[in-house]
Amino acid sequence: MGLIVGVVGATGAVGRKMLEVLEERNIDIEKLRVFASARSAGEKINFKDQVVTVELLTEEVMKDKFDYLLFSAGGSVSAQYAPIAAEAGNTVIDNSSQWRMTEGIPLVVPEVNAHVLKGYKGIIANPNCSTIQMVVALAPLHKRYGIDKVVVSTYQAVSGSGHKAIVELENQMKDANYPNNVYPKRIATNCIPHIDVFNDNGFTKEELKMVYETQKILEDNKIKVNSTTVRIPVFFSHSESVYVEFKETPEVSEVKQILSEAPGVIVLDNPEKNEYPTPLEVANSDDTYVGRIRKDLFNPNALSMWVVADNLRKGAATNAVQILEALETLK
Amino acid sequence: MGLIVGVVGATGAVGRKMLEVLEERNIDIEKLRVFASARSAGEKINFKDQVVTVELLTEEVMKDKFDYLLFSAGGSVSAQYAPIAAEAGNTVIDNSSQWRMTEGIPLVVPEVNAHVLKGYKGIIANPNCSTIQMVVALAPLHKRYGIDKVVVSTYQAVSGSGHKAIVELENQMKDANYPNNVYPKRIATNCIPHIDVFNDNGFTKEELKMVYETQKILEDNKIKVNSTTVRIPVFFSHSESVYVEFKETPEVSEVKQILSEAPGVIVLDNPEKNEYPTPLEVANSDDTYVGRIRKDLFNPNALSMWVVADNLRKGAATNAVQILEALETLK
Repeated sequence: MGLIVGVVGATGAVGRKMLEVLEERNIDIEKLRVFASARSAGEKINFKDQVVTVELLTEEVMKDKFDYLLFSAGGSVSAQYAPIAAEAGNTVIDNSSQWRMTEGIPLVVPEVNAHVLKGYKGIIANPNCSTIQMVVALAPLHKRYGIDKVVVSTYQAVSGSGHKAIVELENQMKDANYPNNVYPKRIATNCIPHIDVFNDNGFTKEELKMVYETQKILEDNKIKVNSTTVRIPVFFSHSESVYVEFKETPEVSEVKQILSEAPGVIVLDNPEKNEYPTPLEVANSDDTYVGRIRKDLFNPNALSMWVVADNLRKGAATNAVQILEALETLK
Repeated sequence: MGLIVGVVGATGAVGRKMLEVLEERNIDIEKLRVFASARSAGEKINFKDQVVTVELLTEEVMKDKFDYLLFSAGGSVSAQYAPIAAEAGNTVIDNSSQWRMTEGIPLVVPEVNAHVLKGYKGIIANPNCSTIQMVVALAPLHKRYGIDKVVVSTYQAVSGSGHKAIVELENQMKDANYPNNVYPKRIATNCIPHIDVFNDNGFTKEELKMVYETQKILEDNKIKVNSTTVRIPVFFSHSESVYVEFKETPEVSEVKQILSEAPGVIVLDNPEKNEYPTPLEVANSDDTYVGRIRKDLFNPNALSMWVVADNLRKGAATNAVQILEALETLK
């Protein structure tokens, strides 16, 4: 018997990618239902050899029976509808930031902490895109050397702001007068150190997500993260310059060995052959790529690396579908 | 009596900018001579109300009398010709990396260490573009709090690779099939963590310049710098995500005060009004802009900031002309 799966926010950039990934990974779906706001309800969506009609999202339909409901329609939609669905006995995998830091809600990157899903029913949170790819690379190293501190600067693609942002960059690249609709400044041939809203402490919410979500996923509140998140004129895949101080001394050869054996990680690190990951090369992959692995010149316990992953796939849709797969395995 | 000034490599991106800056800053030039290789010799260049003919660079002409010779023609040209010019009694201000780390050669950012020019004659080195803007922001803070460690990630403009790279990005933005001539990977809608050649320790030469040039300019070999340098699809101005650990505890209000009084620095830091520097806004300025100043969440002695400057101006041409001005003041 196949699964009954619902996708909420199916017409957005991540929602579309979720449908693509569900299809690619051959999830055994008996019935797919897709939901959106009144603006998109009635639209037709192709899934496998079917045409599925977008249904209007209401509190009532969330009480129907689903094996899995994948949400990607923003925090306020998840706040309103996910608890109703969960109360009706449905398992919700939520891509918004709404429930991530709520105690008792699992925040899951399957390669890292699938074990927290055991015996759990209800809302499961999909982490922030920048956090996911960083912890995929950090988790196996944390296990071996113990992380003390991380200093990360991101190079984030516009697709993280949804389809409108892709259109904005496309148009601005061709037209010097195309306005800034999504971003506060022009994004073409520019970079903007501002993702999500600013907090009083001077960090953005995106930067704080990388701090607290990392601690929650790695189950260690002593890990110190300092983050600067920056939007750059790239369509797909986020890149991260990650500096890590460990409690023990890592050696580059061993680090490469550990990462190359880690699930979901591909080590691409032959600088002499110009082999290191870039967003254009990583886009459309489900893996997290790591390159530029090198020891700090001064601190024997510190390491730098360059981490790239497709933000719509591993950073969102693929991770959500992997959570579904992990739950199926645990059944 | 005005100055006799020569510009070597006058037809390159930085050389042209040097002429522009010499004109803008009203340097009292009696005679301007411009030099280039056989490929460009004979070309005409406009300077103020004159038309100047590009002369062929030879060892002989370097022995002529100049008050200042500004070099921007690459390391090998500086290696060959600068010592001849200096031996003939000329003052050389060299933008290449050739002489920067040579003992006895001053490496100068005038706002920071103009004092080393006192009584000096010969070759003076202009630092690396990424280093210049970082030390302009760091020097006043180093004086007050003492820097222990810096972790920096850069977002560098293509103009740092010369005029050909500007053409490459322009064309790639319009044409998906335009080849990679300057860069090892496509730069449009991508970012490349690779500037200058790789060293055996896994760092690039550009990254190592930021380490050792910073120590030399700040006259403190104990300062630890960890750098990751990345090319992004921006035409003008480099941006830097700078994390600093100090020996003493900085307070954000005092840091803003110190930086706003520091020469060559403009503090642009009102995130609630979307005020922080971006490359497009800073391009064409001679100042170094600092924003996103905030305390680390965990280490009371650590601070993050975002530093942006025009790489062809403060990062190259303007700094060279400011060295000339500093020498004139010391006369």
